[in-house]
Amino acid sequence: MSKQELPIIDAAVDVSGAACCAPLACEPLSESEAAELAPLFKAIADPVRLRLLSLIACHEGGETCVCDLTAAFDLTPPTISHHLKVLKQAGLIDSERRGTWVYYWINPAVLARMSALIGPASPVLAGTA
Amino acid sequence: MSKQELPIIDAAVDVSGAACCAPLACEPLSESEAAELAPLFKAIADPVRLRLLSLIACHEGGETCVCDLTAAFDLTPPTISHHLKVLKQAGLIDSERRGTWVYYWINPAVLARMSALIGPASPVLAGTA
Repeated sequence: MSKQELPIIDAAVDVSGAACCAPLACEPLSESEAAELAPLFKAIADPVRLRLLSLIACHEGGETCVCDLTAAFDLTPPTISHHLKVLKQAGLIDSERRGTWVYYWINPAVLARMSALIGPASPVLAGTA
Repeated sequence: MSKQELPIIDAAVDVSGAACCAPLACEPLSESEAAELAPLFKAIADPVRLRLLSLIACHEGGETCVCDLTAAFDLTPPTISHHLKVLKQAGLIDSERRGTWVYYWINPAVLARMSALIGPASPVLAGTA
């Protein structure tokens, strides 16, 4: 692999002034990719939000009434609403009001993007298998 | 699936006092699993740490000299060390000193556990496919 194919490492050489680095077996995450992905991981870096996400995904039909979600936690409805808002703002879930209740479902494309980084098919895991 | 197979939702019924919920197609994350996984996602919920992780994984042989990592960022060595410490304390990477330099490598088992939750083979994504 030529140096021209590794712009990030070329930039690193400029910064350090030294001839570096050990050869790379795959292309590391760019600065902009990392900046986009970090907030997604931050949104699920909370036990309540992780459980909300798995509860929504596990409901038959792929969507869940907020009434079922609040019933599953020993937390106030405003606290559950706050956590759902964080997940929705990150793009991990979407929702729709139908009559009295709001219904939530997973956005699989966003989760797929996150898992592509740390999943078994990604360079991060494959490189160490 | 009988109610007896869904202890988490049974617990939710106890809390709310109401007969809930919509049927579940898979088993949601337990409170203790969520409490264990959330800090792992928090550790990678940072652009610098995401890039460090991918840089370590992409280095040939699966391990990286800290000298190569500091050279790849426009950050001071103490800042890089802080981020590496967070990743190591979460169990995502491990390290060994050899002479002048410290060498880092990925802990694939921990990443596999995280990706099992959000990856394509997990209920979270499979349930919405």
